[in-house]
Amino acid sequence: MDIAIPLYDRFTALDAVGPYEVLSRLPGARVTFLAREPGPVTTDNGMLTLTAESALEDLPRPGLVLVPGGPGARDLLDDEPMLAWIRDAHEHSDWTTSVCTGSLLLGAAGVLDGLEATSHWLELETLGGFGARPTGRRVVEQGKVVTSAGVSSGIDMALVLAARIAGEDFAKAVQLMIEYDPEPPFDSGSTDKAAPELVRTIRERVAGS
Amino acid sequence: MDIAIPLYDRFTALDAVGPYEVLSRLPGARVTFLAREPGPVTTDNGMLTLTAESALEDLPRPGLVLVPGGPGARDLLDDEPMLAWIRDAHEHSDWTTSVCTGSLLLGAAGVLDGLEATSHWLELETLGGFGARPTGRRVVEQGKVVTSAGVSSGIDMALVLAARIAGEDFAKAVQLMIEYDPEPPFDSGSTDKAAPELVRTIRERVAGS
Repeated sequence: MDIAIPLYDRFTALDAVGPYEVLSRLPGARVTFLAREPGPVTTDNGMLTLTAESALEDLPRPGLVLVPGGPGARDLLDDEPMLAWIRDAHEHSDWTTSVCTGSLLLGAAGVLDGLEATSHWLELETLGGFGARPTGRRVVEQGKVVTSAGVSSGIDMALVLAARIAGEDFAKAVQLMIEYDPEPPFDSGSTDKAAPELVRTIRERVAGS
Repeated sequence: MDIAIPLYDRFTALDAVGPYEVLSRLPGARVTFLAREPGPVTTDNGMLTLTAESALEDLPRPGLVLVPGGPGARDLLDDEPMLAWIRDAHEHSDWTTSVCTGSLLLGAAGVLDGLEATSHWLELETLGGFGARPTGRRVVEQGKVVTSAGVSSGIDMALVLAARIAGEDFAKAVQLMIEYDPEPPFDSGSTDKAAPELVRTIRERVAGS
């Protein structure tokens, strides 16, 4: 299966690389990183550059589309070449998926109309403006459209997809190979669990930026 | 703080990018990806290329060293330029760390002599041959030397480091920003939890390869 991960300036690296690490292990999977033009694409903090091997138009019909999020997603919400690529790829895909604010791009492309979907917790409200019904769940399956919450959630989503595509036993083998037995040292990974003061401080900082 | 992540042919992407996603958010952090020579470095499956911005010798004294693992680590166990860089960097670092089989490189450089350390579960025995005392714990702190288990464990380790470096409140804020509230769909992420038959099958496949 061809798996396409479109990159863009100021994407968030783990959004893309987490799911890649799982999905690339599926039997017959071929993951291709794409961009408007092939070449280097730099992440949100400017500290890491990945290579897009191909242009978007070089892989118009992947079996699985995975759109990562990041601050740069906002710059593409009216970028017709990217949105047209997503729209067309979705029409023919087996799976259309996103991590974090990648769902805003799915929404802007019209993929989420009437569907439940998720995004980074700071952008759930924005997501509602794109025809989706936002939910705070970590991985949201709506037929072939699967969205996941912020940044690290793509690993969980990719294991769900791995099970759907290659079976639960295979997904479990991948989980063991990447030793995904999480032990976060704190319990602060969602707005339900983090200190309310912390959630408020971050919301205020983002609103003021 | 300068954070150096040395890359090499056939490293495993998530080993490097998981911790990068956490550590790059620390106040004043500057993450630099290094390699023998600056330029593209391709991952273990050949599907992803990251850019090393600098040569090893361009950043001899980072505050934090993080050595990722991957199948290519085995090719470097007697690579004196890499091992000498690790050895020298460790002598001056505040933190010397590894993910997955990156610990084999720390061991080969002499960094782990007499210390408890961990690695990918398939390589714990090998690690014992490099002077370390292997343990199955996910994150192993021995003063400034911190090692973590397979692939995905680097995220947990990086949050531990974030707390040590910038305080627990800051680490919790990073955890919330990357929405690290893991929900693996299966409980198959370690040899203690996966089906014994699966563990055996993978061990036999690796032994036969």
